[in-house]
Amino acid sequence: MTTNFLLSPSGEEIMLKPGERADDLQLCGLFCIQDKNRFCFGMDAVLLSGFASVKENETCLDLGTGTGIIPLLLSAKTKGKHFTGLEIQEDSAEMAGRSVRLNGLEDKIDIVRGDIREASSVFERSSFDVITGNPPYMTDLHGLKNPAEAKAIARHEVLCSLKEFVTAAATLVRPGGRFYMVHRPFRLPEIFGELRAVRLEPKRMRLVHPYVDREPSMVLIESVRGGNPRMTIEPPLIIYEKEGIYSEEVRRDYGF
Amino acid sequence: MTTNFLLSPSGEEIMLKPGERADDLQLCGLFCIQDKNRFCFGMDAVLLSGFASVKENETCLDLGTGTGIIPLLLSAKTKGKHFTGLEIQEDSAEMAGRSVRLNGLEDKIDIVRGDIREASSVFERSSFDVITGNPPYMTDLHGLKNPAEAKAIARHEVLCSLKEFVTAAATLVRPGGRFYMVHRPFRLPEIFGELRAVRLEPKRMRLVHPYVDREPSMVLIESVRGGNPRMTIEPPLIIYEKEGIYSEEVRRDYGF
Repeated sequence: MTTNFLLSPSGEEIMLKPGERADDLQLCGLFCIQDKNRFCFGMDAVLLSGFASVKENETCLDLGTGTGIIPLLLSAKTKGKHFTGLEIQEDSAEMAGRSVRLNGLEDKIDIVRGDIREASSVFERSSFDVITGNPPYMTDLHGLKNPAEAKAIARHEVLCSLKEFVTAAATLVRPGGRFYMVHRPFRLPEIFGELRAVRLEPKRMRLVHPYVDREPSMVLIESVRGGNPRMTIEPPLIIYEKEGIYSEEVRRDYGF
Repeated sequence: MTTNFLLSPSGEEIMLKPGERADDLQLCGLFCIQDKNRFCFGMDAVLLSGFASVKENETCLDLGTGTGIIPLLLSAKTKGKHFTGLEIQEDSAEMAGRSVRLNGLEDKIDIVRGDIREASSVFERSSFDVITGNPPYMTDLHGLKNPAEAKAIARHEVLCSLKEFVTAAATLVRPGGRFYMVHRPFRLPEIFGELRAVRLEPKRMRLVHPYVDREPSMVLIESVRGGNPRMTIEPPLIIYEKEGIYSEEVRRDYGF
């Protein structure tokens, strides 16, 4: 068993545990520590970081941050002042914390361990300008061998339902603040219903299609706390031009 | 002032009033009488007739049928048994009735004059397999010079709100029956909310984009009375390949 160390900008030795690797994010020299046996971030998180708009000096909270990928990317892509990642799983939160130190971003990013369902006791109400989240997509718990496993918690609504997720966002974002979410299109009516029930009005949406002639696999949604009911649907985001070839937009904006 | 007559298949003389013309629908020899000074059907109605699925022997009601374009097209495109068009404006209903006779479709299509808001006193509840509708898109009544004018009634919610429209659909469609609607994308969250409030679950949706890299201008939605909450979003429907050139799908499926 080898244990690896990487050096942070300040010279601190950051440990990589067995099974972990530090992936180059191809953005401002950032690295993200991941464990292939746990949940690895996907294109959904990367696309969400491009869809979310964080303005100068705004504060941002990522609900269920996992590896911390969204705060890491947003800290490089935007002029936001401070980013917080909330994560319930101890091992994930600890790993995300090491990623933050590995990148020397301790002043800009905090990783906090805690439960989304109790987020209003961890953070002050209405205290963030922007909230992001990549909630578990699936409600169906049938066939889950081990619902406590890291991948299951990230993908299925084991620890947090959609309603609990959006309720936390509505509680923590300031009036007029924005909530950005990526989810599965088949749940769109339910997603709109839950958002509007807590006065998060959907204002902007983009569907992500693998190919232009295929059904969308993801939906990106911006909602505004207390916004008026009128939304913009953007042109489709097409991932592949043809098999194996990313579209121009995905190559240009996301470096794939 | 010239008055024109056209002959129906049975030899009846069908009058065209001044300002009216009979447009060739390029489908099974069908014609549709329109008056350029009143509301003329647009691509939205044509696309809705392609999106709606009417099975063999099903009965179908079109709410706010205007020129009768949707029953006319569906009677040719599907194996439905019978089609009814409900229209509040006397002149429009009379003109649609002449179109039905001009095409010799009196056995297959009825045009009924009546108010969508009172539709449940005109028709039996839960009596249609399929309901279609192209409701007024705009809520904003500012700047309307004459809200009683035919175009205003068709385009703005002067005589019928979205809530009244979907409530009529939910009342008249049978359990498990389908409601097809075309609307503007900017009202999508509200549309889903109104549909779900009357137990019409959105099950299938398609966004219509003028070009692949432009925002959608229309949305087509299928909802099912009492359906379960899980929807399919289809690939985008792109109207133009480039300026002045319709896309292959629009040329192939709609004869543009």
